[in-house]
This record gives sequence, structure tokens and C-alpha cells, in this order.
Amino acid sequence: MCPEVKLKKLILILAESALETIPREIWTHPCIRKYSKTRSKPPAFLLLDLSFHYQAAKKLPDLHKRGRPDIVHVTLLEVLGSPLCRRGLLDIYVHTYADYVIWVDPSTRLPRHYYRFCGLIEQLFETRKVPPEAEKPLLTLEKMTLRELLEKLRPDTVVLLDESGERRRLRDLAEELVQWERPALLVGAFQSGKFREETYRLATKIYSIYDEVLDTWVVTSRVLTAVEEVLGIL
Amino acid sequence: MCPEVKLKKLILILAESALETIPREIWTHPCIRKYSKTRSKPPAFLLLDLSFHYQAAKKLPDLHKRGRPDIVHVTLLEVLGSPLCRRGLLDIYVHTYADYVIWVDPSTRLPRHYYRFCGLIEQLFETRKVPPEAEKPLLTLEKMTLRELLEKLRPDTVVLLDESGERRRLRDLAEELVQWERPALLVGAFQSGKFREETYRLATKIYSIYDEVLDTWVVTSRVLTAVEEVLGIL
Repeated sequence: MCPEVKLKKLILILAESALETIPREIWTHPCIRKYSKTRSKPPAFLLLDLSFHYQAAKKLPDLHKRGRPDIVHVTLLEVLGSPLCRRGLLDIYVHTYADYVIWVDPSTRLPRHYYRFCGLIEQLFETRKVPPEAEKPLLTLEKMTLRELLEKLRPDTVVLLDESGERRRLRDLAEELVQWERPALLVGAFQSGKFREETYRLATKIYSIYDEVLDTWVVTSRVLTAVEEVLGIL
Repeated sequence: MCPEVKLKKLILILAESALETIPREIWTHPCIRKYSKTRSKPPAFLLLDLSFHYQAAKKLPDLHKRGRPDIVHVTLLEVLGSPLCRRGLLDIYVHTYADYVIWVDPSTRLPRHYYRFCGLIEQLFETRKVPPEAEKPLLTLEKMTLRELLEKLRPDTVVLLDESGERRRLRDLAEELVQWERPALLVGAFQSGKFREETYRLATKIYSIYDEVLDTWVVTSRVLTAVEEVLGIL
């Protein structure tokens, strides 16, 4: 019954994450000007957040896939606190809507507070690493597509979770993942809607673990838990 | 191998949660006065948050168990999005440090934003139900100890998760839980430290699922996932 375990690192990628600085098209909108003034920073260094910027953002394309930094925040809190992460078995990347990639050191203690998290990510977009002077930063940011990230990481397999995928029992998915040395697991970190065509093409397998769409943090914690169980960590 | 499944409702109780309005002892502290002015509300109707009130709060007893509404927020986001909750198999209660109990309707769509969540809970402390005029509110609040809550709910068994407990494989814990019709699962929702003696005494069993202390949301998502797996939901 026990699968052959080869896992060295599970590469977790939050894909097409709804995390970006305020896009240039709406910098001059009164709502953005006001927000920029309150925060004492130019819009280029502020995160788009639909809770505050909906009026300015509502005409942007793909609105349902943008301006939700909270999704990345809550999911990373789950991921960084997981036993799998603490055991050093996770590599963590956040790929964003505008094709940036954030690498997250697994030992990062992320701010628990949403606003401090946003401040940290804003600093990251400005300085490309956090802390800015650190030789070993906790977060780094690069302009990079998902394809480029996968070409760089060269995982053994790429599993994409999507409701359109083949329905798979959670345990079976975990048993499949641990049979690879460096599998990549792609989870969408946006509110609703489909991945880009390109993203589907990058996947070796597309699976679904439930009949309904689940929150990013719920999906992620389920898969990490199942992998922890298969590995005997829990 | 399959356990006999009797589960009708898993009663999840976040115990001794670090969620309270600003306590009277520090209302006159300059830092609280200033915060109260900024928020345009008296301190009695504002949540204690150590990120903002540490200077005023640092002499309060049990500081490590207070002023962390974010713990309840992130954990409830995990819980309310879980397949177990969506299937109607969860009853959800938040018991607080100051002995209030919040009942959470499982269909509640909680604010994703931390500040809106705090605003909602502040309203709840003021009006005792949210929305205030609703016949079927989504959240209700009552002054009640954990003992009184358990006497009211009368669960078949009370399982407390604590690092001092007997180490239990996650799967075994889940299999044990589903053999009861209405088991109560108690998870601490505070930063660090031990439960009160009283809380340990209320537990039928005390278990630990990992060798280190885990975040409240990590523990909770692990147990819910394992129960979902045992029930064949995932």
C-alpha cells in the first residue's frame, strides 16, 4: 500500500496570483491619487487592492484575477506554518498576474497583519529583495513568466490543480506527488475564473480534489496535509 | 480498516481565543486614547490588538494569550472554506479569553480583509448579533464560560489539542472523532502558553498531533482535512 517515496522537495507555486502594484492605466484616477497621498507613496509602489481601489480598477481586464493580496497572505501563512515546510521539504514561489516571481524562504516569519504584509510586499516590489541589504534575503522578486520559472526549476512533473481537471482522491494525489523527487504543484491564487491557456499547457497533469471551487488556502492546506500524512510526518 | 462512522456534527471550539475588546484597565493610556480617537469609537467597542496597543497592554496579565484577533480571523477563513463546513458537518464556536462565546453560522462569508473582520467583531461586541436586526444572524455573542458552553452543547466527548497531550497520528485522531455523533474539538486560539487548568479538566482526551507547537490555523486545517478524508469527502 505504501508508495515508493522519492520526494526531496515539493515545489509549491501559487500561480497567476492576484498580487501586483497599481497598474499605470489607473494611476491618475482620483481614488488612486487620494490613496497614494494617504499612504505617502507613489502608486507604482503600492499594491492594488480591490477593497480600496474598486472604483478605479473596475474597467481593468481580468478584474476577477487581480487585486487580492489577502489570498497570497493567508495561503502563505498556512504554507509557512505547515509541518512539511518546517521539515525543509518545500520550495515556495508566488507567480503573479503581471509575471513576477517571488521566492519565499521557508524560514520566513511572515507578518501576521495584512497591512504589514502588504507593506513588506510593496518594499519587495521596490527593492527586489527583503530585507534590502541582506546577503540571504527572505524574499526575492524577479520579472519572470511561469514558463521561465519552470524552465529554471526543471521539476520532474508539473501538477496543476483546477476544477476542470481529472477528479482525484486527495490521498492518491499525495501518493503520486511523493513518487517524484522534485514535483511542482501549481495552485491558482486568484478569486475566480480560469488559468491562462499557457498555464494549462505547462502542466503534466491537471487534477481536481473536490466538486466545488475551494479557496486557495483550503486547497493548499489539504494537499500539504495529505503529503505530510503519506510521509508519516503527521 | 474503516471505522464505524457516526458523526453528525463536529463541534469545533476555538478555546481561550485572544480576542477581546480593549480592557478597562488601559482605557486611559495615551496610546489607547489616540487609537480611540482615530477610530472614532470608545475603547470599550474596539478590539485589543497588540500590533497597535502593545505599549498600553504590556503590563496586562497573560499578555501572550491576548490581543491577537488575526489568529481567529485566519483560522475561521480556513474553517468556513473547508469541505466539511460546506457539507454542513461543522458547528463553530469561538470562546474568548474574557469568557464570551461567539457562535458562527457555517454559511457566513467572513470579510477577507483583517480590518473589516475586526470591524464586524467590534459590531458584534456592541450589538450581540450581526447583522443586528437579522432574525437569523450570522454571528451571535454571549457572555459564557467554556464550561457553560459545553454544558449547553452536551457533546459526546471533548478532545483538546495541546502539545502536552498524548501524541496521536492525525488519521487515528480523525477516525476516533468520527466514531462519535457530536464530538467537540477544542483548539487554542492564542499565541503561546498553556490553557487554563479548568480547560484541561473539561477535556475527555488531550492529544497532540505534532512534536512542535503549530499555528491554530495549521492544526485546525489538519484535523478537518483528516476528518474529510476519513468520511470520503476528499
